[in-house]
Amino acid sequence: MPAAMNRQVLLRRRPVGAPRPDDFEIVESAVPTPRQGEILCRTIYLSIDPYMRGRMNEGRSYAAPVELGQVMVGGTVSQVVESKHPAFASGDFVVGYDGWRAYAVSTGAGMRKLDPAVAPISTALGVLGMPGMTAYVGLLDIGRPLPGETVVVSAAAGAVGSVVGQLARIKGARAVGIAGSREKCDYVVSKLGFDACVDYKTQEFLPALKEACPSGVDIYFDNVGGAALAAVLKLINRNARIPLCGIISQYNSTELPPGPNLAPILVNRALIKGFIVSDHADRLEAFLTDCTRWLREGKLVYREDVQDGLPAAPAALIGVLEGRNFGKMLVRVSPDPTRPG
Amino acid sequence: MPAAMNRQVLLRRRPVGAPRPDDFEIVESAVPTPRQGEILCRTIYLSIDPYMRGRMNEGRSYAAPVELGQVMVGGTVSQVVESKHPAFASGDFVVGYDGWRAYAVSTGAGMRKLDPAVAPISTALGVLGMPGMTAYVGLLDIGRPLPGETVVVSAAAGAVGSVVGQLARIKGARAVGIAGSREKCDYVVSKLGFDACVDYKTQEFLPALKEACPSGVDIYFDNVGGAALAAVLKLINRNARIPLCGIISQYNSTELPPGPNLAPILVNRALIKGFIVSDHADRLEAFLTDCTRWLREGKLVYREDVQDGLPAAPAALIGVLEGRNFGKMLVRVSPDPTRPG
Repeated sequence: MPAAMNRQVLLRRRPVGAPRPDDFEIVESAVPTPRQGEILCRTIYLSIDPYMRGRMNEGRSYAAPVELGQVMVGGTVSQVVESKHPAFASGDFVVGYDGWRAYAVSTGAGMRKLDPAVAPISTALGVLGMPGMTAYVGLLDIGRPLPGETVVVSAAAGAVGSVVGQLARIKGARAVGIAGSREKCDYVVSKLGFDACVDYKTQEFLPALKEACPSGVDIYFDNVGGAALAAVLKLINRNARIPLCGIISQYNSTELPPGPNLAPILVNRALIKGFIVSDHADRLEAFLTDCTRWLREGKLVYREDVQDGLPAAPAALIGVLEGRNFGKMLVRVSPDPTRPG
Repeated sequence: MPAAMNRQVLLRRRPVGAPRPDDFEIVESAVPTPRQGEILCRTIYLSIDPYMRGRMNEGRSYAAPVELGQVMVGGTVSQVVESKHPAFASGDFVVGYDGWRAYAVSTGAGMRKLDPAVAPISTALGVLGMPGMTAYVGLLDIGRPLPGETVVVSAAAGAVGSVVGQLARIKGARAVGIAGSREKCDYVVSKLGFDACVDYKTQEFLPALKEACPSGVDIYFDNVGGAALAAVLKLINRNARIPLCGIISQYNSTELPPGPNLAPILVNRALIKGFIVSDHADRLEAFLTDCTRWLREGKLVYREDVQDGLPAAPAALIGVLEGRNFGKMLVRVSPDPTRPG
């Protein structure tokens, strides 16, 4: 079928500190041909997520690193363009992990078909995808919010944080965001419906956070670590729960900085629990059922930050690590046929 | 009855940093007389524990501070010398919280009678008391050791740590101690039966700990925080549990030092849980049943560091905070009639 060229983004060099554009390399090759039992997919959306920085390092983090010269890993929403697999038909939309490339051949293992009539297909990388499920599992299974409790979440305008606060509200809790600009904070309150949002870049961060949490903090869903975590610990309540989802503030660090003093954890009998969404596959059905319903009911809203063309991917990741995205970062690798124009 | 004088140790001044002997004041007064519904007890043993340092500070920690001019708080094993309470008889041995004094009148609320035939009465302040129960609850309920797992505990020669490692062994786990001298480490291995013990004061602490934990660390029962915690985090396994029991390394700090970097918690999906034994009163019966049996079976052994006379109490506490005790620190305030000689 396709006579088009394939484009792939490879890891060229392991970054020291912040990644640079020339740590990546774009290569072109022929579009591969599926064999029996395989499918050929054209990538429509590539998801850009903070965890990708960890995969660029040597040595194991929660998953094996990307090898030098190999295609960068990443979640994708694609359309099947050729199928030699009984479970897939040409034209099907699927979400999977095809990586940073325009076309990919696979067996379809780990892929899930998407119905564009249920929700925009791009949401399978955001509010109805890995980031949304991260929020769902971390908040509901580890945080376990009770009505009236105060839930604080960092990176509140991001793909995970935005869902955390909305789920907190759905569960009857008070939602307080932490974000990196006035504009993001305004969005978090006015569009996402959080009760408050505090800009961590202002000088008066701790007093502002305290004012936003007059009854202290029962759950802190932490995406960033660093100064925000240290500040929140000063406000935690007895039996507080801290789902530890990410430490974006140090993903580009060349040495691990010290962490927060743990005295408030001891005194308040609090819990910190690291988690990785991929361990919780048993929750996928519940997550999709609940969040699809809430999305259709308008209780969950989302925002996407879409960059066009695969070559935009390196800069998109560099931006995400610096907090320059505003909403779920996606690269539109090819036109989305479900959203003409 | 008693014509003797009562002696009490009061908090005279709130320490800045390490407590000094003159932060305390010893006063004498008449022995009080019990009214109807009250008992008069003579203190035999006063327990000296790290938590007392927190009570000397202004401001709430997990409990209200001792007020200036008030008697220092503390666990005690006492004998009833006069009873006007139907539940107690003169001669009864009781464990309670009479504080740093030779005689105390109380209603007996919160006191528990001791049978000297079951175990030496001093154990009600150690292996069969608050420290033992702290080990029991923290290790078994939060740590939940499985056979073959590696359990590391800091302050391993102390009242809590020594029980943690022995319980780990009873549960079929591997026990590795961290202690502050060669002598303590030898004791922890040869007398308490730990599989290994590492001296944190040696330069080669991390390599030695690594050698002692060839399969990594599944549970770290932390009594000290600081450098030991940071080192253990480098070795933790996936799904590790860290019952956070104390942060002795910083109890005398005037400013809270930074804590450990939490990346290993995230990557390993580990759990940190602060806990306070007093929240777990529902476990008292199970603890006493199990640990009394193990003690009588010789599966639990213990060591006491006994100082004589109430005036020794301030120096005893100062020593505990510096790790100079070797075993459960007790002050023998009056002779133990169950152990003549």
